Amino acid sequence: MAAWGERLAGVRGVLLDISGVLYDSGEGGGKVIAGSVEAVARLKRSGLKVRFCTNESQKSRRHLVAELRHLGFDVSESEVTAPPPAACRILKERGLRPHLLVHDDAGESFSYQNMNKAFQVLMGLENPVLISLGMGRYYKVTSGLMLDVGGYTKALEYACGVQAEVVGKPSPEFFKSALREMGVEARQAVMIGDDIVGDVGGAQRCGMRALQVRTGKFRPSDEHHPEVKADGHVGNLAEAVDLLLQHADK
Amino acid sequence: MAAWGERLAGVRGVLLDISGVLYDSGEGGGKVIAGSVEAVARLKRSGLKVRFCTNESQKSRRHLVAELRHLGFDVSESEVTAPPPAACRILKERGLRPHLLVHDDAGESFSYQNMNKAFQVLMGLENPVLISLGMGRYYKVTSGLMLDVGGYTKALEYACGVQAEVVGKPSPEFFKSALREMGVEARQAVMIGDDIVGDVGGAQRCGMRALQVRTGKFRPSDEHHPEVKADGHVGNLAEAVDLLLQHADK
Repeated sequence: MAAWGERLAGVRGVLLDISGVLYDSGEGGGKVIAGSVEAVARLKRSGLKVRFCTNESQKSRRHLVAELRHLGFDVSESEVTAPPPAACRILKERGLRPHLLVHDDAGESFSYQNMNKAFQVLMGLENPVLISLGMGRYYKVTSGLMLDVGGYTKALEYACGVQAEVVGKPSPEFFKSALREMGVEARQAVMIGDDIVGDVGGAQRCGMRALQVRTGKFRPSDEHHPEVKADGHVGNLAEAVDLLLQHADK
Repeated sequence: MAAWGERLAGVRGVLLDISGVLYDSGEGGGKVIAGSVEAVARLKRSGLKVRFCTNESQKSRRHLVAELRHLGFDVSESEVTAPPPAACRILKERGLRPHLLVHDDAGESFSYQNMNKAFQVLMGLENPVLISLGMGRYYKVTSGLMLDVGGYTKALEYACGVQAEVVGKPSPEFFKSALREMGVEARQAVMIGDDIVGDVGGAQRCGMRALQVRTGKFRPSDEHHPEVKADGHVGNLAEAVDLLLQHADK
């Protein structure tokens, strides 16, 4: 593989995934991934553009940012791209009235009953529209790996014979809105995430570069994924920032 | 479309789906579909071979047969092909020790917690094996359409990156075992079901003919399904049996 200098040449903006990169969510607000608080601070001082790009849909941006600030991160609401505001825009633009299957009825409260209700609503529509807030396979909390929303979306797609519109990673539209908000072009941006498919594969399909951290939901088999090859693997965010400060354009 | 005489020529054996063809399951043991009790009796007196082929996996064959007999059907356990005994054979043959996600923990008791447990078990295995009892999209009870197991299997397949082995319709192996038990070849058999994909499409892929009844989970759009074209549509089982007694080989 090419040297880091070559792989990171021309980078002007950095998209950071949050869960599994900054911290592992879980009981009591979660746990910082060692070195990440300082890494974010150094990145923001460096002159590189920085934006947080998350599929978090169980908490509002306000709640998420409060949790991160409490852990010591320098982050504000206006720096975060997340699915719920994007989904609200779509609903308004098209004049759709949603049946909501979101927190507190989703997440760990997914049940046969609330899935079946969503299924019945979709089957009753002449032109069913299914909007999914992300398409994650699983995420990591302090106690282990947890099923994410993608599987539940697949269940409804299969049962109803519809295809979901994904608002969140790995939807290209979602990455593009984060790039627009950051004011950087895809070829000048690098995504740093722990999800080989949703973060790395999704960002690369948009023309960005992407590094996978070996924290969060990272698994050793990701380094030999049959379809996605990261532009590099790093131990954690701190190591990624070291490399960026050494090699990226500032 | 060809005349019924041509479409049913050479038929010597009939596979009957149960739910949505004989009866609609639901509260208090379900409700007979009008004319089906007599239709089964006439079919069995006709000299045609008859076998019941179901994806029912919430009840044992004994329980299912008791329920059907209570409703007036002439059926015995030895005439029923169902997923659970077939799955038991596979587990024994391969020496697999299963983590079970079946009734009472499945069906209407599917929850985030028991799905997540199955997900974690699969993610912890070096060579994960996921066996699914059927792949139904939905079924009909007296109160309406209900999500079936297929969606939940899709959820685990997506989250874990595995492909399930399906024991039940539309697996060709499952249809073939029903044909073997009936002693009739695929080209001499017709499947009668309410599921355009699982019953009709599955049977046709095995070389059988297949009729869809307009009862149970049948929906008008099934008659113009993009991938599956039934060999004929009939109002209900009674009408199918009228046609068979007129046109099939006896």
